[in-house]
Amino acid sequence: MNDALRPVARARVLYADTDRMGIVYHASYLRYLELARVELIRGAGLPYTELEARGLGLPLTEVHVRYVAPAEYDDIMTIHIGLARLTRVRVEFDYRIVVAAGDRSGLGQDVEILTAQTRHACVRLETGRPERLPPEVYDVLHSCYTPSRD
Amino acid sequence: MNDALRPVARARVLYADTDRMGIVYHASYLRYLELARVELIRGAGLPYTELEARGLGLPLTEVHVRYVAPAEYDDIMTIHIGLARLTRVRVEFDYRIVVAAGDRSGLGQDVEILTAQTRHACVRLETGRPERLPPEVYDVLHSCYTPSRD
Amino acid sequence: MNDALRPVARARVLYADTDRMGIVYHASYLRYLELARVELIRGAGLPYTELEARGLGLPLTEVHVRYVAPAEYDDIMTIHIGLARLTRVRVEFDYRIVVAAGDRSGLGQDVEILTAQTRHACVRLETGRPERLPPEVYDVLHSCYTPSRD
Amino acid sequence: MNDALRPVARARVLYADTDRMGIVYHASYLRYLELARVELIRGAGLPYTELEARGLGLPLTEVHVRYVAPAEYDDIMTIHIGLARLTRVRVEFDYRIVVAAGDRSGLGQDVEILTAQTRHACVRLETGRPERLPPEVYDVLHSCYTPSRD
Repeated sequence: MNDALRPVARARVLYADTDRMGIVYHASYLRYLELARVELIRGAGLPYTELEARGLGLPLTEVHVRYVAPAEYDDIMTIHIGLARLTRVRVEFDYRIVVAAGDRSGLGQDVEILTAQTRHACVRLETGRPERLPPEVYDVLHSCYTPSRD
Repeated sequence: MNDALRPVARARVLYADTDRMGIVYHASYLRYLELARVELIRGAGLPYTELEARGLGLPLTEVHVRYVAPAEYDDIMTIHIGLARLTRVRVEFDYRIVVAAGDRSGLGQDVEILTAQTRHACVRLETGRPERLPPEVYDVLHSCYTPSRD
Repeated sequence: MNDALRPVARARVLYADTDRMGIVYHASYLRYLELARVELIRGAGLPYTELEARGLGLPLTEVHVRYVAPAEYDDIMTIHIGLARLTRVRVEFDYRIVVAAGDRSGLGQDVEILTAQTRHACVRLETGRPERLPPEVYDVLHSCYTPSRD
Repeated sequence: MNDALRPVARARVLYADTDRMGIVYHASYLRYLELARVELIRGAGLPYTELEARGLGLPLTEVHVRYVAPAEYDDIMTIHIGLARLTRVRVEFDYRIVVAAGDRSGLGQDVEILTAQTRHACVRLETGRPERLPPEVYDVLHSCYTPSRD
């Protein structure tokens, strides 16, 4: 587990996110991973729209989610994220979603909802072809590495 | 109520469609209206992709849904649609979603789930500006009018 | 148009919300209407979960949306809401979604995205049967009426 | 790669599934995996609703998707699935989504869209606690194993 994840987004669970089991539908969490991702890189100085303005995108090539405990309706989820790996053509992020004590009625301690990883390739939007990350973009992404906690 | 609606699509309710009330989330039905719409015009000889290939689109300008009874998990919904109104720049559709007897375990008679209307404007995709429907497209859409049942 | 709507929620447009026209998919807005609704009544002192704890719900019986201009990827939408009508068994809300100047790159003035209305019936969750709003719930909802701007 | 996957469902890509990159949003595929899953076990004689009628569910504990090539608007996707592993408390499925030649305008050969795995635990719905699969349910699931192609 990547301990160096930072909380970058919070979101309230809506009816829209739940399913008839009364909990968040497994696919609904993926939008919150996206939310964390764009906020992380925006915080580093790279709105995703700027990447697109250069004709580039970072589509997912892989996602892996381990569901630990269900988030419930009206919970406030905190989404943690960290840059896990960066090369000239690939980016990987680690995630953890937590409902913190106090963010669910009557909840006395933090509950880990899930952990996840996503892998992305840099592509030219027009063609879908892989392309190297421009050096300035690479540098901004590189700055997202969380300093290890020594 | 438009009696001249035709059943053009059937779809099974998934967990993905439900919410914690155990029934279909109100917004989930809208994708099934879209499904009926594209099947209606495809059946008339106009795949929506052809419209797009001409640089045109038919985005929604208005939607109105009356929820009559909830569809439940595993129901098979039948989506009925009819062309309600057509001008050189606008299209309107009427819809009715029904769960037919036999399409829910133990259901002895048809249940009306909702009725809906959508209104669309013809626009140039690049600019979002309104544009007149090309005559051939207008003719295809016009052929979707259901003959009245005399 | 209901002028007495209050901004109660803000949300960033995600890729998850968009469609291939490059704008927000028409059904995606409905979750933001839900967000505004729960925040309005929570602000008045009635978390929706409390209503459910009494065995009651407020499912939609009708929704009407007029799409004025598209919200775009990365926009920050502000969702305005007001209580439009309240009886012992029904609640209606009015909504307006706006992208304010500064909440889209390069946007010099507010853009109205849509206006909407939803109508809800009070029902017993177990049976789906209509039921009168408990007086305390009615009173809380009643306090959501925005004072008119004289 | 599991070669013994069976095509159990077909679905047309809607606008609802796409994002502004013009292709299917990565999370949208998950509903199609669900579709394949329920059709596989229904075909074996176990509607998921029967499992629920016994008070049991099979929530996801893990999902892993490798995106190979994007599905596009109006494509017809074929979803293949196979039972990958079965124990008394766990079920795993393998998936492959393909757009076959002819199921996209102008497409001359099959395109593999993604491969995926999901892992599920049997739980009592009321409590969320793990529980052993009832023998009859186990047997039905076991019958989903695809005979190897000798």
